[in-house]
Amino acid sequence: MFDVAAFKQQFPLLGHYPELIYLDNAATTQKPRCVLDAERAYYETSNANVHRGAHRLAVAATEAYEGARDTVARFLNAASSDEIIFTRGATEALNLLANTVGMLLSPGDEIIVSTLEHHANLVPWQMLAERRQLSILPLGITASGEIDLAELATFLARPRARLLAISHASNAIGSIQDIQAICDMSRQHNCLTAVDGAQAVAHLPVDVQALGCDMYVFSGHKVYAPTGIGVAYIHNKLLQRIPPWQGGGEMIETVAFSGTRYATPPGHLEAGTPPIAQAVGLAAALTWLAQQDRAALLAHETALHQQLEDGLRAIPGVVIHGQAAHKLSLSALTFGHVHPYDVAQFLDAQQIAVRVGHHCAQPLQQALGITSSLRISLAAYNTADDVARCLAVLADTLDMLN
Amino acid sequence: MFDVAAFKQQFPLLGHYPELIYLDNAATTQKPRCVLDAERAYYETSNANVHRGAHRLAVAATEAYEGARDTVARFLNAASSDEIIFTRGATEALNLLANTVGMLLSPGDEIIVSTLEHHANLVPWQMLAERRQLSILPLGITASGEIDLAELATFLARPRARLLAISHASNAIGSIQDIQAICDMSRQHNCLTAVDGAQAVAHLPVDVQALGCDMYVFSGHKVYAPTGIGVAYIHNKLLQRIPPWQGGGEMIETVAFSGTRYATPPGHLEAGTPPIAQAVGLAAALTWLAQQDRAALLAHETALHQQLEDGLRAIPGVVIHGQAAHKLSLSALTFGHVHPYDVAQFLDAQQIAVRVGHHCAQPLQQALGITSSLRISLAAYNTADDVARCLAVLADTLDMLN
Repeated sequence: MFDVAAFKQQFPLLGHYPELIYLDNAATTQKPRCVLDAERAYYETSNANVHRGAHRLAVAATEAYEGARDTVARFLNAASSDEIIFTRGATEALNLLANTVGMLLSPGDEIIVSTLEHHANLVPWQMLAERRQLSILPLGITASGEIDLAELATFLARPRARLLAISHASNAIGSIQDIQAICDMSRQHNCLTAVDGAQAVAHLPVDVQALGCDMYVFSGHKVYAPTGIGVAYIHNKLLQRIPPWQGGGEMIETVAFSGTRYATPPGHLEAGTPPIAQAVGLAAALTWLAQQDRAALLAHETALHQQLEDGLRAIPGVVIHGQAAHKLSLSALTFGHVHPYDVAQFLDAQQIAVRVGHHCAQPLQQALGITSSLRISLAAYNTADDVARCLAVLADTLDMLN
Repeated sequence: MFDVAAFKQQFPLLGHYPELIYLDNAATTQKPRCVLDAERAYYETSNANVHRGAHRLAVAATEAYEGARDTVARFLNAASSDEIIFTRGATEALNLLANTVGMLLSPGDEIIVSTLEHHANLVPWQMLAERRQLSILPLGITASGEIDLAELATFLARPRARLLAISHASNAIGSIQDIQAICDMSRQHNCLTAVDGAQAVAHLPVDVQALGCDMYVFSGHKVYAPTGIGVAYIHNKLLQRIPPWQGGGEMIETVAFSGTRYATPPGHLEAGTPPIAQAVGLAAALTWLAQQDRAALLAHETALHQQLEDGLRAIPGVVIHGQAAHKLSLSALTFGHVHPYDVAQFLDAQQIAVRVGHHCAQPLQQALGITSSLRISLAAYNTADDVARCLAVLADTLDMLN
């Protein structure tokens, strides 16, 4: 059995605000004490710049940083730590992919981007397409909010379709894609697959080898880790073929005005002093998460989400967007003529934190025929009381505003 | 009078290792307790995602993040907080400049890059030059290790010289440039100036308006702040003209498959969730530093450096590289036939931390006729005892190895 009270006690912010009901976890999660402790311990006992260090503190910092890379590789079941590139976050990781893997594409090539995507998995490809004369193929969704696999098959059959950009789970409506099946389809057509896992990693097991994806990215701050850190997994076969992106220290072999030679992968993709303490914090978060009974965490989140959506369906005037067979524990809502922002204000007055807006997914919202939604997103520290209270305040609010 | 013992007590790592003599400050500085406290307090009391927040925690996070931008603007005396862009570090900031400001240049235009530059202020411009058919003009240095102002005047008189990349102070040999005079020269020829202030900010007062530079970058981790955060200052006139670089959330106005409109500056340069806690930590470090008697700190560092170089000149076989009239409190050394790395190993055995290598400045090292140096770099928490002990161990080591 999952002891949510004991789990929740590990989060200092939730203890600091005992009345807070934090339901904005898809935007960012709170951080357990062990993660904050790990980052602080790094600064207090190992802080130095990494690599090429001629003193013991630099060696300790390098071991901490490269150890974090090993931890991420194990967490994702990557074949090698070299396949793990640290970035500022998932967004920078996707920009890195567009500016490195994207350079392998030729004018006229096509990139399939699903309508479910967060702007971070669309705009970098759009910018690349404009620069390199590529085309973007917008992949539609079904009525339930899953990607249209029939259309995907059609797109993949096109001779110039080279890359598919797809999220493991939608940040806006929660739909979970069958990434393994999709990667299988892609691979049969020699199409690369870049998976945005920003929403998935905190909730679902991720095994990049089992999924069969060529690229997988996520952010630390959405998986109980610090801000300022993210990861790009790039399959070794691809890694060996891609050019560098940012220039600077660390990513070079030799530098001269007459010409510069770049380092071998993955070093050539990490220019400058990396986010060392944040990588250490991320490793602490992933280690801690791996030590939990993840199936129990997911069962807890799923049960809460069932409670939430059952309750929502019983409140007149609530529309739930996205009815995928497999959904993350999040729900996107509209309320007829009542604006989601107004509802959120009343929830906030009762210390219930949710998010309102386009959720950086305007093409999806357009497909759904809305411009804004109220998103309730759960994490494993949420409780049945949190959900019950949210439902009660929401019902009262709509009663009052209608 | 500057109380170095009281100052040093603010640094937990230095208390944790009382025997450590940390002289690798140009690689990264240690962090005062107040900075670690500020970052932790952010996570424990304000953590949420920033912007467009419909709840009080998101408002608190946004205020903390945007407040950090205001603090940086005040620290640099920028005319507006909008001129401050947060990045992962100085290297990413320079890559941002090359990929935004650099896009204003046309094939055949010339970029002047000084031989003093860290690879981070050379390689991004080289990569840009290759992509956009620009030329790099390598600006030489004088025998003392300062940039050659006569050659600069010649280069600036060339009709296609458009941008000058120069460091405020050299990371490898410490030379401080007269940036104000150099910016004056540049401006008279309508040449933009990008200043790498990574080494300067921890030691020298920086007033971007007084300096008259168009761009100025630095890293947090070299100015007593966390890793994973840096700053690009871009003068407003330039900021309004430059395209975005990375794509994603936050940097857009509207996104559609049919075309995306970008946000107005500076938002269009910050894609995705920013390094929020790190910006808060940086603001704490800059606030703390501004509260110190900075003239007294600099006088202390200068006196230590005088003690160091006087002592070094008295040790047979020590060659000090760089004799600029104005130097940071750092010294680059070689030892004839004795390899710097071997010397550093003996220093490390006595818990004296220095750095050895090319210091990411291979063109400079080539100009100096060396391939590696041992760098001793001071910060305000160093003491006269630190310097005396370093000198004694160095003398003993060379005595033994010679």
